[in-house]
Amino acid sequence: MTERDFEAYADLGATTENAMDIAETSMDRVRELVPDETLADRLRQKSVHATGDPEFQHLMRFTGADDSELVRAGARAVLDEAPIVTDITMVKSGITGRGHDCEVRKAIGNSAELAAETGMTRTAASVLELDKRGVYDGAIAVVGNAPTAALALADCIEEGTRPAVVVATPVGFVKAAESRKRLREVAAEHGVPAVTNVGRRGGSGLAAGLTNELVHVASDVRSGDVEL
Amino acid sequence: MTERDFEAYADLGATTENAMDIAETSMDRVRELVPDETLADRLRQKSVHATGDPEFQHLMRFTGADDSELVRAGARAVLDEAPIVTDITMVKSGITGRGHDCEVRKAIGNSAELAAETGMTRTAASVLELDKRGVYDGAIAVVGNAPTAALALADCIEEGTRPAVVVATPVGFVKAAESRKRLREVAAEHGVPAVTNVGRRGGSGLAAGLTNELVHVASDVRSGDVEL
Repeated sequence: MTERDFEAYADLGATTENAMDIAETSMDRVRELVPDETLADRLRQKSVHATGDPEFQHLMRFTGADDSELVRAGARAVLDEAPIVTDITMVKSGITGRGHDCEVRKAIGNSAELAAETGMTRTAASVLELDKRGVYDGAIAVVGNAPTAALALADCIEEGTRPAVVVATPVGFVKAAESRKRLREVAAEHGVPAVTNVGRRGGSGLAAGLTNELVHVASDVRSGDVEL
Repeated sequence: MTERDFEAYADLGATTENAMDIAETSMDRVRELVPDETLADRLRQKSVHATGDPEFQHLMRFTGADDSELVRAGARAVLDEAPIVTDITMVKSGITGRGHDCEVRKAIGNSAELAAETGMTRTAASVLELDKRGVYDGAIAVVGNAPTAALALADCIEEGTRPAVVVATPVGFVKAAESRKRLREVAAEHGVPAVTNVGRRGGSGLAAGLTNELVHVASDVRSGDVEL
């Protein structure tokens, strides 16, 4: 290989020394743009980090007794090794492998028959199927892509399922904003802490980033840097 | 299971009948917001679809003889069964499994030693390693997350590697916009068609969506609906 400026290749998400320096620089820049006062602010910061957009912080919504309840409940669930259940493979792939012992699984792929029979989406059918098996009770329920998965999850909560927390940021022009609104209402009514966003934006990277920040908060609790 | 309104669960990305109806509705809405004249417009539409933001179309940049050269070259590469090489697992997970016979592989995980030795990121080291093995020549090279992977890819092109096309949308506050700018310059200089965006936004979902649209164009060529 020819000689290269290896330092130029250091960045986020890597485990190498320069990589971690640069990741810190990136979060420093985000902290100049987003308040750093409450635990909820950490998720607001993460939303800005994940989307590259300083304005995204204003689109975040927290359901709970206060904005930070979701973060406390999420960190506790991580410490309790609750399963992390995502809607699709892409979101599962974005969940960090470090800092937790939670099982990470995806919903999609669990109910092809129901989807084929009813015409509903594979993710929605899979959420209903996993819910029938009790998977969502006490789980960290994450929806990054499919509005119909978010709608199905809202129905499950309405019918008695109690995830530890809900992270829901499906993106798009059809039902995405509506599905998050319904989740917020149902979560608030039934006392399930939830983080969502308003508007059409969102997506898998955002959902994975927010979930990973719950893992980071749990690590900070473990090390004594944060008290819940 | 209690009775449900199954139609409410039909949406994007699914293979079921109602799901496809709704996906079509979603793209119809996007087409009201984005021109539908050139092949490049299909990628502009996809950027809006993937981000949920009508303004994103204006952030897209195409390197080539004309804006649509990237799409033609990308569709040809799909028809030629060129490998699709992503930076990270999350982007690989977002690439559709239907409509192509391309091998889909990821860079990350191919050079832990080089990353550890040099302090560069694992993705950048992996891009350099795969390039040494000739993987990027003729490939559909996709970078959705790591700015340093985009910088490494630009260096490879400068040193003689010729991907069929480059899709690069890393997101963030450190080096993301700069890495895409450098890729645009190098790609233009060496005649490699590339699609990128300006600004800090971007991400894995966008990169996967744009790549999937190249697959869709290839399918339309196969069916005779599009001529290259």
